[in-house]
Amino acid sequence: MTKYFTEEGSAETVNARMADGTNPRLREVMTSVVKYLHAFAKDVELTQEEWECGIDFLTKTGQISSEERQEFILLSDTLGLSMLVDAINNRRPTGATENTVLGPFHVKDAPIHQAGDSINLDGKGESCLFEGRVIDIHGEPIEGACIDVWSDDAEGFYDVQKPGEIPKWNNRGRFITGSDGIYRFTSIKPVSYPIPDDGPVGQMLGHLGRHPYRPAHVHFMVTAPGHKTIVTHTFVGDDDYISDDTVFGVKETLVASFELIKGETEWRSPFDFVMVPESSDPPPKAC
Amino acid sequence: MTKYFTEEGSAETVNARMADGTNPRLREVMTSVVKYLHAFAKDVELTQEEWECGIDFLTKTGQISSEERQEFILLSDTLGLSMLVDAINNRRPTGATENTVLGPFHVKDAPIHQAGDSINLDGKGESCLFEGRVIDIHGEPIEGACIDVWSDDAEGFYDVQKPGEIPKWNNRGRFITGSDGIYRFTSIKPVSYPIPDDGPVGQMLGHLGRHPYRPAHVHFMVTAPGHKTIVTHTFVGDDDYISDDTVFGVKETLVASFELIKGETEWRSPFDFVMVPESSDPPPKAC
Repeated sequence: MTKYFTEEGSAETVNARMADGTNPRLREVMTSVVKYLHAFAKDVELTQEEWECGIDFLTKTGQISSEERQEFILLSDTLGLSMLVDAINNRRPTGATENTVLGPFHVKDAPIHQAGDSINLDGKGESCLFEGRVIDIHGEPIEGACIDVWSDDAEGFYDVQKPGEIPKWNNRGRFITGSDGIYRFTSIKPVSYPIPDDGPVGQMLGHLGRHPYRPAHVHFMVTAPGHKTIVTHTFVGDDDYISDDTVFGVKETLVASFELIKGETEWRSPFDFVMVPESSDPPPKAC
Repeated sequence: MTKYFTEEGSAETVNARMADGTNPRLREVMTSVVKYLHAFAKDVELTQEEWECGIDFLTKTGQISSEERQEFILLSDTLGLSMLVDAINNRRPTGATENTVLGPFHVKDAPIHQAGDSINLDGKGESCLFEGRVIDIHGEPIEGACIDVWSDDAEGFYDVQKPGEIPKWNNRGRFITGSDGIYRFTSIKPVSYPIPDDGPVGQMLGHLGRHPYRPAHVHFMVTAPGHKTIVTHTFVGDDDYISDDTVFGVKETLVASFELIKGETEWRSPFDFVMVPESSDPPPKAC
């Protein structure tokens, strides 16, 4: 290999520059970044103009980001990278509840409720009873599991998106299972909503002919001592966007049943969460 | 292929979402972006924490960028992507002068000088006579070629980096060849300097054990009607950083001769620019 840059050996020349003492995991990750970045440019024979377009896009994506908005996460979400990283880090045996992305709207320390309570504070939307059990992979109930739930309101907004307008903790709360592993609460049947599409990511979706919608879903984070945390959603199967969630969050096993139990606006959605034991080996660290 | 996301078919699921009417070149580029981005994440089994670290790095890289500073270009430069794109877009037959990156310090419409003029306005640095010919691939002189030259000063700074302190057009100028294709001017033997390393890219270089220096070089942009523009540098071969330019700009054929012609501080650097005819087919456009 020549010490100078050549088109053929471009990635190797760049990676050969890393010093001997580089953190081994950082070396592994950066070697791969360079390898795939160069492979991409070679694959499409990226033009100078396209490169400038890419630099401009990434710069705008950073610059629109703020405390309230993270456009690079939106980019990762809409390119399926967030779901891929989630999948890689949460492989579970068949039968265990699958993970999906956390999303930007989780709030820690939501109020703890009694089984059967309603968490719908604004009285808007179609009422829905959510119930089921938290069990292990053998079907045994898990006592003391915490079910942290959050969803949008009848108009597609989370409380944190409209503070002052939507009551704090609307459609959010935590429930602790007893010895039977059962959870039960009332909230609303969620509705679909668009991700913020007035920035670079929205423009990208527009150029690709993609809509910015997520199908209706309820977020859950289920924790229990000695078990892997489940971060997931349950989805409304008859939603218009169930087959083309703009962030690719839907998995077949997460499409829940929503059954009418009274009139045309009172629902019940049963769903069991199946947990697996916590793993003991943490992954290596690059940063 | 399932309509829902799976780890195995992740890239295919994302790419299948592009609408039928998508610009064909955009489709090609984005399909490749997704393919190689997902291949990278799978290759290293990227952790959630590393993903967050990457999101944070890209966000900071966008946010430090401004009218005066382009950190994403620095990132592209230091990962060898800028040189790769330059190489892909400027393939030339053996014997033709090779391209290298433009860099951020070119200024249009520099003063046009007569052959033999000095462009060193501040009187600092070791004097150097630059001379040679602009010829075609058969060795025939090219008349009316414009040689646009720019370099740093004796302390490693371009005039535009310190306006008011360094005279405007210091070590910059344009020269037009006559019928013999000859150019000749006096400037200084350039010195090595670091790229801006007080931002995210500098931190990255630090973690990889890489220095931020570029070896001493003089920038040239050579244009002539009917010929491909040459954007290049010539390099000082005995520079400390000649083998490890932090932006990978050095090519073997661009290392120029610098010969002492008087005492220990008066130099001569001969270099011929060899041009090829302009291509007639522009590349397809994605944006």
